[in-house]
Amino acid sequence: MKLIRFGEIGKEKPGVIIGEKKYDVSSLVSDYNEAFFEENGLEKLKKALESNPELPEVSNEVRLGSPVARPSKIICIGLNYIDHCRETNAPVPAEPIIFFKSTTSLCGPNDDLIIPKNSEKTDWEIELAFVVGKKASYVEEAEALDYVAGYALLNDYSERAFQIERGGQWAKGKGSDTFAPLGPFLATQDEITDVNNLKMWLTVNGKTFQDSNTSNLIFKIPFLVHYLSQFMTLLPGDIISTGTPPGVGLGIKPDPIYIKPGDVIELGLEGLGSSKQVAKAYTK
Amino acid sequence: MKLIRFGEIGKEKPGVIIGEKKYDVSSLVSDYNEAFFEENGLEKLKKALESNPELPEVSNEVRLGSPVARPSKIICIGLNYIDHCRETNAPVPAEPIIFFKSTTSLCGPNDDLIIPKNSEKTDWEIELAFVVGKKASYVEEAEALDYVAGYALLNDYSERAFQIERGGQWAKGKGSDTFAPLGPFLATQDEITDVNNLKMWLTVNGKTFQDSNTSNLIFKIPFLVHYLSQFMTLLPGDIISTGTPPGVGLGIKPDPIYIKPGDVIELGLEGLGSSKQVAKAYTK
Repeated sequence: MKLIRFGEIGKEKPGVIIGEKKYDVSSLVSDYNEAFFEENGLEKLKKALESNPELPEVSNEVRLGSPVARPSKIICIGLNYIDHCRETNAPVPAEPIIFFKSTTSLCGPNDDLIIPKNSEKTDWEIELAFVVGKKASYVEEAEALDYVAGYALLNDYSERAFQIERGGQWAKGKGSDTFAPLGPFLATQDEITDVNNLKMWLTVNGKTFQDSNTSNLIFKIPFLVHYLSQFMTLLPGDIISTGTPPGVGLGIKPDPIYIKPGDVIELGLEGLGSSKQVAKAYTK
Repeated sequence: MKLIRFGEIGKEKPGVIIGEKKYDVSSLVSDYNEAFFEENGLEKLKKALESNPELPEVSNEVRLGSPVARPSKIICIGLNYIDHCRETNAPVPAEPIIFFKSTTSLCGPNDDLIIPKNSEKTDWEIELAFVVGKKASYVEEAEALDYVAGYALLNDYSERAFQIERGGQWAKGKGSDTFAPLGPFLATQDEITDVNNLKMWLTVNGKTFQDSNTSNLIFKIPFLVHYLSQFMTLLPGDIISTGTPPGVGLGIKPDPIYIKPGDVIELGLEGLGSSKQVAKAYTK
């Protein structure tokens, strides 16, 4: 299945994509949130759809929200593509580097990117994210995929000055509002033949900056589920983003390039669709 | 007001402490969660209590949960006591260091501390925490206290090997289950005469290890609200913990001391009560 959430910000309804069309499934489920995944909602929804219920079609013009509701956490993996380590002059990590994004950064795949106040170094990072399907604590790597609900495209926007130049710990540059556009949809595992062989690309104003493949991931999803679950309990609906390949603005030689108001960022992941954000300055 | 949540894990009900007694207010409010704080719940509860409603008394034997429900985030401030910087050989930060604790670490003030699997360096950190009362984004320091619901005692348990020796970023050593006992209660601001002059102490097996005062805080609460709100939106019910004074196990000379199964950790903050955790090994 391909799950979407659609409608106004904060009032999104659950839907599905079947073929080229979008359908409203709010008559079948209330939302794609922690309770949905915890109560075996994916399986129930799949069964309900097999009986071909009458579902309202959703216009392709409608705004998409994040395909999952605000989770208990968004965990990201740092420096998980070997070439990205090189471009940022960072050593290849011996074990995963992890950090949190404030869950208030989550937004729809095509929402505007709001460049934070006092930001001069807002940067992009295309990533493969996965969503946790059930409560995970001390999970074995061999069982880890049982804990994965599905996959989605994420842009892990990062303010490099906040992240690196403002004193210890990366969390400061990762959690601004609109810094985590997710989607367009959440694909259940059966939709993706080989999650470790997906092309990925990101352009800014039409120029390609990131062009890689998930085959370059250092630590893969089953290991990440196992690893993270040694340090904290993962909850249904949690979003884990697996890291970004080379081509971020910070790594451009001789001078880094950062996002300016009006810039158009487009990105895509094979089998997981594409998204587009237009950068705006913060105003209020 | 002094707010408590009581009852079995995951089924806590809201209550208040009046004088020496605890009362069940679940007839007045459903829980102390994001919606409660967002919808001006503190003011409504205060009004409701002024009319002296008949409230069931709660036994002093009952388990206390965290005085607030699982929030959108728990943010901690690192190295915010000048003497703690010295004991850990860290430079005094020019601006606050921030990191997240997984919200799954939140528990009741007197719940057992579960030492994680493969942990050899579980450590204590008494802290003054505050709870956010309303949505905060780009807040001025002068208005910051309007965004604070109240104060509570927190033990920011930390696994030092996970935090420091396992590759970048502290989040890995901060989020294990039971690593954030909060309470016994949340005190609204009016209960505390001077939050910048509260004695604080922590003992392990009866021996005092931490003995300080919130007057030693480098960055104080109004500045922290202002500062954090530049980097992310704070939501009602979010927990912010302000850092720990000297005396953590990591800083003991000549050899650090860490928590063993059976150890009893007790801590208190003037005006905010005390809590007690018994350490247990993880078993399953």
